[in-house]
Amino acid sequence: MSCPHARRRDALRALLTTAGLDAVLVTDLLDVRYLTGFMGSNAAAVVAADPGDDLLCTDGRYRIQAARECPGLRVVVDRPSAPAAAVTVAAGRTLGYDSATLTVDGLAAVRDAVPGRRLRRAPGLVGQLRAIKDDAEVAVLRAACELADTALTGLLDAGGLAPGRTEREVAADLEDRMRRLGAAGPAFETIVAAGPHSAVPHHRPTGTELRPGDLVKIDFGAELDGYHSDTTRTFCLGRAADWQRELHALVDRAAAAGRAALADGATVACVDAAARDVIAAAGHAEEFPHGLGHGVGLAVHEPPWLSRSGTGSIAAGQVVTVEPGVYLEGRGGVRIEDTLHVVPGAPAIPLTSLPRTLVEL
Amino acid sequence: MSCPHARRRDALRALLTTAGLDAVLVTDLLDVRYLTGFMGSNAAAVVAADPGDDLLCTDGRYRIQAARECPGLRVVVDRPSAPAAAVTVAAGRTLGYDSATLTVDGLAAVRDAVPGRRLRRAPGLVGQLRAIKDDAEVAVLRAACELADTALTGLLDAGGLAPGRTEREVAADLEDRMRRLGAAGPAFETIVAAGPHSAVPHHRPTGTELRPGDLVKIDFGAELDGYHSDTTRTFCLGRAADWQRELHALVDRAAAAGRAALADGATVACVDAAARDVIAAAGHAEEFPHGLGHGVGLAVHEPPWLSRSGTGSIAAGQVVTVEPGVYLEGRGGVRIEDTLHVVPGAPAIPLTSLPRTLVEL
Repeated sequence: MSCPHARRRDALRALLTTAGLDAVLVTDLLDVRYLTGFMGSNAAAVVAADPGDDLLCTDGRYRIQAARECPGLRVVVDRPSAPAAAVTVAAGRTLGYDSATLTVDGLAAVRDAVPGRRLRRAPGLVGQLRAIKDDAEVAVLRAACELADTALTGLLDAGGLAPGRTEREVAADLEDRMRRLGAAGPAFETIVAAGPHSAVPHHRPTGTELRPGDLVKIDFGAELDGYHSDTTRTFCLGRAADWQRELHALVDRAAAAGRAALADGATVACVDAAARDVIAAAGHAEEFPHGLGHGVGLAVHEPPWLSRSGTGSIAAGQVVTVEPGVYLEGRGGVRIEDTLHVVPGAPAIPLTSLPRTLVEL
Repeated sequence: MSCPHARRRDALRALLTTAGLDAVLVTDLLDVRYLTGFMGSNAAAVVAADPGDDLLCTDGRYRIQAARECPGLRVVVDRPSAPAAAVTVAAGRTLGYDSATLTVDGLAAVRDAVPGRRLRRAPGLVGQLRAIKDDAEVAVLRAACELADTALTGLLDAGGLAPGRTEREVAADLEDRMRRLGAAGPAFETIVAAGPHSAVPHHRPTGTELRPGDLVKIDFGAELDGYHSDTTRTFCLGRAADWQRELHALVDRAAAAGRAALADGATVACVDAAARDVIAAAGHAEEFPHGLGHGVGLAVHEPPWLSRSGTGSIAAGQVVTVEPGVYLEGRGGVRIEDTLHVVPGAPAIPLTSLPRTLVEL
């Protein structure tokens, strides 16, 4: 079959035996979308040893949409979805569920609905597949990154980053540009953080006006066909002071080290350490309080997780951010983030291509 | 204390004894925001019998933000948040958790972290408080509804709903207008559904152009200070055909019946039935495949749930949508949705005020 969703269900099916399962109950909505193409807000799916037993369960609001989005897949309209999907699995079978996303009450409802089946924890089975992007997914992610790059470049060219504008105005302008370029919307709430706010890693834009001398950190992305981009650049309004220039150069070196370490087979802890060591050597270990990066796809944040305590290794096909930052409370912070595609036997390929030198506006 | 978050924690504290708990572990992020003011993307909170034991737990990215957003509350920086928050509860105590939102693996991690504590299911404790809005919350919800109304009126006045524009253009235009009026963004992905698409209850806007004779269903809302509005209107491009006019009149009557039934003390099933009976009497029961409405607040969809099978009653202080729809596959659909504030001893007060007569453009 050439339908990507059917291919993905087959790939999941191939994992069933090893996992000791006859079928998997899929309850995470992005997992459901990945495996079936269904984009509604309520659904569960079953992927079974026999493809003929695969199905999607949703409610009446989505009857028409499910038929259109999931050709060739059996659709059951009933709610609640997870128990209704689970009961289609025959008695005596072993059914896996995603314990990482199914709630305690959700599992209890499934248990009540299927007294004769064995239920077994199977966290992250679909996530494992989702982490490795196929060519079509990489193409969409690349397009989303390019679109976002174009939007920020357009904003800068139009003088959109200037004293007197508020953080909120800049964020709205950037999101508007992404939409006009074809994005479904921002990939997440755009961060525009000026002056001391730039030292807050996940600052929400306020009515604060940008001022000369501010560092301005912009962390943003575009959503395109359900996939996300994720980029951060930090600018200086006017000529940078020495400490701003040095901070930016430090983070730039750390980011370069992280990107260089991001390769098929590297452990996530080693990739994180490559960037973190640069920052720690400069005496700023405490001011880099987050992981180095994360996978990007149907979710903005998804495996793999690059962090000190992370386990597992990078694999070809993953699309991953590298985003070190150093945040000096009360003064300002710098983060530089790119999204890269890991390929076999070669350095990871950046999908984001904005210049990384410090831009003084 | 005058801080609304401290007041809300006290209200939750007052429920502990009845629930047989010494403390509650709060893991849903909107519940955390409601109780503490913290708006980051990773956190858990504890509310305990002794207010001095209350705390927020988050990670290093949010150290500065948490201190700013939660004055007067102990903040612990550690991750993962839920186990780190739970271990602060003394051995021998009984700790409630929200089984409706905590995942199976999340509970397992908490269990591992607190071997000496009793853990007890306590779903929806905070949701019960959140359902009843205080004056400040109602004021924000009213402002969000008015803002959204103004945005749609502005779009119509500017001729923004016209043949040749695409669904996606109209959605982007409307969202842009909401932002310019001060919204943080749309409350959810704006639905603009033209012609046959209007028969898909939760249609996502496409590149399809609006055409003369189309029904155009617009379901949209504004986010303001974390609160949401939710409104639907259905228009006709050009003079409505008889079936379109009749369909709209039917849904309008159903919506009026639903709004009239929405009152302090009414069961949710009765409110649903008031509108559903009107539609069923016209022979369209099958074509109204969703509940009549839902609560609106920090979440776009939250208790109470108005549906046939719903349990419980409406209470003063709730803010609830009434949104019947009839969807004729392949032809078109109509939904009319308003958001109302339930008050004691009087009809619920609409917060949305757009005209409900069929507008022919």
